[in-house]
Amino acid sequence: MNKSVFNHFIPTRLIFGQGTLTKLGKEKLPGKKALIVITAGQSMKKFGYLERVTRLLSSNGADAVVFDKILPNPIRSHVMEAAALCKKEGCDFIVGLGGGSAIDSAKSIAVMARNDGDYWDYIFGGTGKEKLTTGGALPVIAIPTTAGTGTEADPWTVITHEERNEKIGFGNDYTFPVLSIVDPELMVSVPPSLTAYQGFDAFFHAAEGYIANVSSPVSDVYALKSISLLSKYLPRAVKEGNDMEARTQVALASMLSGMVESTSSCTSEHSLEHAMSAHYPALPHGAGLIILSKAYFSAFTDVCCDRFMSMAEAMTGRKSTKASEFTDALVSMQKACHVDDLKMSDWKIQPSDLSGFVTNARETMGGLFQVDPRQLGDDELLNIYRLSYK
Amino acid sequence: MNKSVFNHFIPTRLIFGQGTLTKLGKEKLPGKKALIVITAGQSMKKFGYLERVTRLLSSNGADAVVFDKILPNPIRSHVMEAAALCKKEGCDFIVGLGGGSAIDSAKSIAVMARNDGDYWDYIFGGTGKEKLTTGGALPVIAIPTTAGTGTEADPWTVITHEERNEKIGFGNDYTFPVLSIVDPELMVSVPPSLTAYQGFDAFFHAAEGYIANVSSPVSDVYALKSISLLSKYLPRAVKEGNDMEARTQVALASMLSGMVESTSSCTSEHSLEHAMSAHYPALPHGAGLIILSKAYFSAFTDVCCDRFMSMAEAMTGRKSTKASEFTDALVSMQKACHVDDLKMSDWKIQPSDLSGFVTNARETMGGLFQVDPRQLGDDELLNIYRLSYK
Repeated sequence: MNKSVFNHFIPTRLIFGQGTLTKLGKEKLPGKKALIVITAGQSMKKFGYLERVTRLLSSNGADAVVFDKILPNPIRSHVMEAAALCKKEGCDFIVGLGGGSAIDSAKSIAVMARNDGDYWDYIFGGTGKEKLTTGGALPVIAIPTTAGTGTEADPWTVITHEERNEKIGFGNDYTFPVLSIVDPELMVSVPPSLTAYQGFDAFFHAAEGYIANVSSPVSDVYALKSISLLSKYLPRAVKEGNDMEARTQVALASMLSGMVESTSSCTSEHSLEHAMSAHYPALPHGAGLIILSKAYFSAFTDVCCDRFMSMAEAMTGRKSTKASEFTDALVSMQKACHVDDLKMSDWKIQPSDLSGFVTNARETMGGLFQVDPRQLGDDELLNIYRLSYK
Repeated sequence: MNKSVFNHFIPTRLIFGQGTLTKLGKEKLPGKKALIVITAGQSMKKFGYLERVTRLLSSNGADAVVFDKILPNPIRSHVMEAAALCKKEGCDFIVGLGGGSAIDSAKSIAVMARNDGDYWDYIFGGTGKEKLTTGGALPVIAIPTTAGTGTEADPWTVITHEERNEKIGFGNDYTFPVLSIVDPELMVSVPPSLTAYQGFDAFFHAAEGYIANVSSPVSDVYALKSISLLSKYLPRAVKEGNDMEARTQVALASMLSGMVESTSSCTSEHSLEHAMSAHYPALPHGAGLIILSKAYFSAFTDVCCDRFMSMAEAMTGRKSTKASEFTDALVSMQKACHVDDLKMSDWKIQPSDLSGFVTNARETMGGLFQVDPRQLGDDELLNIYRLSYK
């Protein structure tokens, strides 16, 4: 199922481990003045992360300006506003500090600091105008404080056009972070439910990348390692947020899953979820994926038999003899993380929304359907939503 | 045994698979005029590889000049001569086409095309003057025609100072190839014995990197995959050079082992071998490693018990219960590749040389002893040479 010809390109300098944030004060920086991008929430300030990052940059000879409006599902207008601030202040690099929303926004801001017009001019999919970012992008430093998106090790950024309910991924060679510092100590403050949602996001990056028809032998080793680590350590990190061994292994898994995203691809589970959270922005992306996952993966049991068994083995450490052991292990892991009973209705999604989600998923993130292990019809997609609805 | 804090940085764009050489005609090139570096042997011309590369560069808008004097153990004076040619001809990138000798030379030439003085001014170890390469290096494209060095996926280059019997590795961020095209079709012409020597070089990059005290969880996944692939496919590639599946998997293993070298390190087995081939340049590097390997790895059986069992499992596909199963599997693999009875005396090495090798290994490649799983004394090193001598 692997591609016989593949590329491998992950130019980001990844620094991993407890206490590594301090290296921001010593590593060669890509500029003299940073725009630090954080969310509108209080955690980056409350836990002192923003102050530490600003101080480390300063000790390393760089000034900083802060943009602190990013939403959990980050939006196009904030990208444009921050890019304007970046130009006005003369910032020459961007620091994304926080979860995927802050780091993804940093990448998109870096693009719009170097290219004219509107961000949606450069988007492929939906109403995007598919222009090329000939101006490149400012260099980005990623400092994740959650473990899930893998954005620290891939070029992807997902932004929502808030007026059009379009939540679309974007990325190219310029949007790999030049430097990512993955310090699990910054992740101890994430509460249990978000730890689980984000950890499952990483899990699905690996699992989707493993069954995608563009997987490679190298993306496979990242994927199986990530799946194995998450199965073992995510329940521990959910149970006890100060378990540093668990936090560290989950952070490593997230980074590995980002490497999967750089070398293979997410599949249409992500398209199906984006349609949900584009319309219901309060729904965490990882929660949406968890809700869809059992029905989604079950659709591929027959065509991915060997791959499902390999994933089951990575999860259980035991020899697998049938494909359904993967979905069984997935459900067990969701139980262990207390996320086996999430309901779409908890986020106000209506049964009448589901057919519209199918259309939105195709229109905005249609490309991912092409890398599914087999082509799913619209009726099957609707069925996945219906089976997942509670 | 893994480092708890580690870096991962492999900025090379790797293109892998049968027939991928044609992509040289389409990929974005890093310059307008290439210096193509090949060995003094006839194979690059005889098999048409040089002509194909020149034509593909031309169709992609780049001129080319050829330097064709590189020796199997490449030497400092050729690096200097080629760098002078590069400057005189106004070349702005280097293409290394061939085995490790050609590609390593390409990297060193790229450095000396951008830095003054002598190549040995920049070498750390031996009589090297430890200057910094402040000028960086010209961009390098690597096109391997052998599977073994992994130089396509790492920054390292090994050059011999022919007047001083110093064979020393060098590398930094600038000496990663910007682009490597790994096309196993270019490897079918390698004869059986060289296929085995080179394949074992890749094997030891993985195995040494796996036991090194600077290994990381990411270097581990590369290493175990490479070890697994080589155990299965190297004997097939040695037996039948046109077995394209075997050639492809061995080429993949070599690339993965290069990724190990970028993210972990070789250990002192490489220092011990360099001392041998620095004095006896006709000895292929891989053959020297094979000769040393059983005695060398046996010295670490006690401190690397778990790691030896993991490697044994990767090689045999069976659960391992004792560390010696790794060295057993290693000897079996050498038998399967018909390289279990190589003798130092076949290359004229004398018993009286051995103590001098210990001194040379320490003086020229002393750094690698620091990453061994335990520190070896000079008496133990001499004993490894003696046990390996026939």
